[in-house]
Amino acid sequence: MELKSIKELLSSDKLLQEICVKGWIRTFRSNRFIALNDGSTIHNIQCVVDYENFPEDTLRQLNTGAAVSIVGTLVESQGKGQAVEIQVKEIEILGGANPEEFPIQPKKHSLEFLREKAHLRIRTNTFGAIMRVRSALSFAVHNYFRANGFNYVHTPIITGSDAEGAGEMFRVTTLDAKNPPLNDQNEVDYKEDFFGKETNLTVSGQLEGEAYAMALGKIYTFGPTFRAENSNTSRHLAEFWMIEPEVAFLDLDGNMDLAEDFIKNVLGYVLEHCEDDLKFLEARLIEEEKSKPQAQRSEMKLLEKLRFVTENNFKRVSYTEAIDILKNSKPNKKKKFNYIIEQWGADLQSEHERYLVEKHFKAPVILFDYPADIKAFYMRQNEDGKTVRAMDILFPGIGEIVGGSQREERYEVLQEKVKAMGIDEKELWWYMELRKFGSATHSGFGLGFERLVLFTTGMSNIRDVIPFPRTPQNAEF
Amino acid sequence: MELKSIKELLSSDKLLQEICVKGWIRTFRSNRFIALNDGSTIHNIQCVVDYENFPEDTLRQLNTGAAVSIVGTLVESQGKGQAVEIQVKEIEILGGANPEEFPIQPKKHSLEFLREKAHLRIRTNTFGAIMRVRSALSFAVHNYFRANGFNYVHTPIITGSDAEGAGEMFRVTTLDAKNPPLNDQNEVDYKEDFFGKETNLTVSGQLEGEAYAMALGKIYTFGPTFRAENSNTSRHLAEFWMIEPEVAFLDLDGNMDLAEDFIKNVLGYVLEHCEDDLKFLEARLIEEEKSKPQAQRSEMKLLEKLRFVTENNFKRVSYTEAIDILKNSKPNKKKKFNYIIEQWGADLQSEHERYLVEKHFKAPVILFDYPADIKAFYMRQNEDGKTVRAMDILFPGIGEIVGGSQREERYEVLQEKVKAMGIDEKELWWYMELRKFGSATHSGFGLGFERLVLFTTGMSNIRDVIPFPRTPQNAEF
Repeated sequence: MELKSIKELLSSDKLLQEICVKGWIRTFRSNRFIALNDGSTIHNIQCVVDYENFPEDTLRQLNTGAAVSIVGTLVESQGKGQAVEIQVKEIEILGGANPEEFPIQPKKHSLEFLREKAHLRIRTNTFGAIMRVRSALSFAVHNYFRANGFNYVHTPIITGSDAEGAGEMFRVTTLDAKNPPLNDQNEVDYKEDFFGKETNLTVSGQLEGEAYAMALGKIYTFGPTFRAENSNTSRHLAEFWMIEPEVAFLDLDGNMDLAEDFIKNVLGYVLEHCEDDLKFLEARLIEEEKSKPQAQRSEMKLLEKLRFVTENNFKRVSYTEAIDILKNSKPNKKKKFNYIIEQWGADLQSEHERYLVEKHFKAPVILFDYPADIKAFYMRQNEDGKTVRAMDILFPGIGEIVGGSQREERYEVLQEKVKAMGIDEKELWWYMELRKFGSATHSGFGLGFERLVLFTTGMSNIRDVIPFPRTPQNAEF
Repeated sequence: MELKSIKELLSSDKLLQEICVKGWIRTFRSNRFIALNDGSTIHNIQCVVDYENFPEDTLRQLNTGAAVSIVGTLVESQGKGQAVEIQVKEIEILGGANPEEFPIQPKKHSLEFLREKAHLRIRTNTFGAIMRVRSALSFAVHNYFRANGFNYVHTPIITGSDAEGAGEMFRVTTLDAKNPPLNDQNEVDYKEDFFGKETNLTVSGQLEGEAYAMALGKIYTFGPTFRAENSNTSRHLAEFWMIEPEVAFLDLDGNMDLAEDFIKNVLGYVLEHCEDDLKFLEARLIEEEKSKPQAQRSEMKLLEKLRFVTENNFKRVSYTEAIDILKNSKPNKKKKFNYIIEQWGADLQSEHERYLVEKHFKAPVILFDYPADIKAFYMRQNEDGKTVRAMDILFPGIGEIVGGSQREERYEVLQEKVKAMGIDEKELWWYMELRKFGSATHSGFGLGFERLVLFTTGMSNIRDVIPFPRTPQNAEF
């Protein structure tokens, strides 16, 4: 008998057929109703057991968390909330779950508790929904880029370059940890290390991505990136996934168009394909926020918020305009901001970004043309001599979700910039060569995937949207 | 004027329209014909220049590798080999390429030379074709699993566990390299390290994948994995991408069905979508093999070989049968093998695998039911007490491309196995718990993505099918 997924069965109209289903028991109540889940959907299928027909020993093992194989007949449901149910003929216990020991019992568990059980939390409704949405978002990313002529590029994870400058790095080594070999200068001799030089985990695939864009035209990366920063916040991970498209012959305006179209498209995909999971997560969020004061609750329901993003244009605002808005804002005048905006050139803090997005514009905002001094060396200088063609996309509740720029394509300008920032040009010889041979305008951006998953699922801690989070002092599993 | 990709233009029937195209010059000959490529396809578009109408200075810069923007009229081609060409009206030099300096000139470069120029080799036909095929294969992987109800899981890259046992690992650390902190036992004090314990780069996402399969039912991973092995061969990388599906309620037969269907499907996808690139790679391979003795040349052309795989059943052969075949084979009797097969229990070497695949069966082969002693601790024991439910898929020219198994789902059996292999059970506490709570039959496999790209493109060195290869002594770019 062919094994059917619960997702298939719940939408099946082939009643009265004998079917086989396997899954994990979520609940067994009244010695009669098994709620069975197999991960294919948030919904359980109800399996109705005539307990008179089954041995006591079998019934005793029908505990939450047990794996069972059930043969039965698909019938129209007598109860509410489901169209079909299974009239059970045979039950096989595949693997029990002692209720004294299995931690995921049918009651409310705190997210903190579940983080300690990352191998089992996926068996809850909440994490099942989050991870199915995460998977769908991933597919939507690949699908969007493929449909638009981009090639997927696997940029290296281990990098010999420390010039990317996006943050603190993890060292990758096979040298003896206690007694590393030393060279003549009495320094660690990385020539003896696996790669013959010091190597780190990448903080970004952008530079290598640029090399590929300058040949394939349109590329994107989607891979893990790393920050060895001691940030124990609800928005930072030491290991996270990043999406970085890069496009030749594209300027900053085109880059903004691309980022906006991309985000709308992937959110549109999950709205279309993950409705059940999103509805569950929406209800979860409403429930969770009940204990919060009104002012801290979300202004929109989850699905409404997602549709708001897909259906409205992002506001495009220059950094200079944004500074004017912030300088004249109430919280600035009343000194409610922790960092008061006094003049042009100030780096925007999360509180300022949130004010712009959540209070002033009430929409996703694209800020562009930032002061050169607060942005990376590779961003293209504007004619004004003081700003660069950078852009950040700010989302409600999340803050920065995208950072991008048009890249400096002029060899001499880049060379000066590299020098001024104290970067060793030799480290970047190959990156510089992209400006020497067939250089052209090009642009790209990076999107932190977990921030997108946070936004889409309405969760509030980034540790809850990646299967096994890595944070300071935590690499369990 | 909208920018068009060369791929679009070459199949366009909108003749006599004014169009704009941007790309890199592959060749400029007779002061008249620019072959322009933008990475969207292996094919160049011919741009016909009336040199009388352009300043000398512009013409002088039309060198191989230069980036140009061209406005012109799409017309029916007068020459052979293309349907359309561009009658050029305007040329803008976006970025020159000094022919004295630009290394990728229109002549044959060795693959070894190009590896030193990994940032520029992508501008050759060969690497353009390889990397477009690689991208299409990646998409085919995601597409196959999504269409079949699998969820994509990002398993961790940094792992605190060293129990996976698949090979030597890279250490990930932020401790001072020269003077690491020591503990009371005068050993390196990893409590002071970023994660509060010793951490490494993952060799496999399987164990974490199993945790997710035992809740979501069907999952797959597709991410980077690492081996710190000093293997300087044409088949090994220190950093490579692996695909690892894992399915609950699936036994080894189902696992074989899945692997075969999966491989046929992704190869079918590139046959359908990458015909031009594959044809180019086929011609390249024929050209390359001309210098080889007949016996070393491929028996089938590239496309024929790919179709052979998609159209024929893989041979399924038990390890025991394979040993019989090998023992009685000519090269074994004539002692031509470097490792003579004498008895059941021998580990198969590459020469044996190749004999089975290339000489005996002349087809992809799935070997199954291996001796327990030569396989990993997590593979399910057969009733015979000496074999496990392992499978390897062997491909012509490549050898092992897939390794998988049904997993040991019985707590006590796994516990004994872990003990017998000297693994610290405490390290695997969470993995053991998967057998304690709702355990069930489950299976999965790992496919080394670069080996699949090697097979598909007909390349012979694995360094040529990943953008920036990492091997011993080499982490440039």
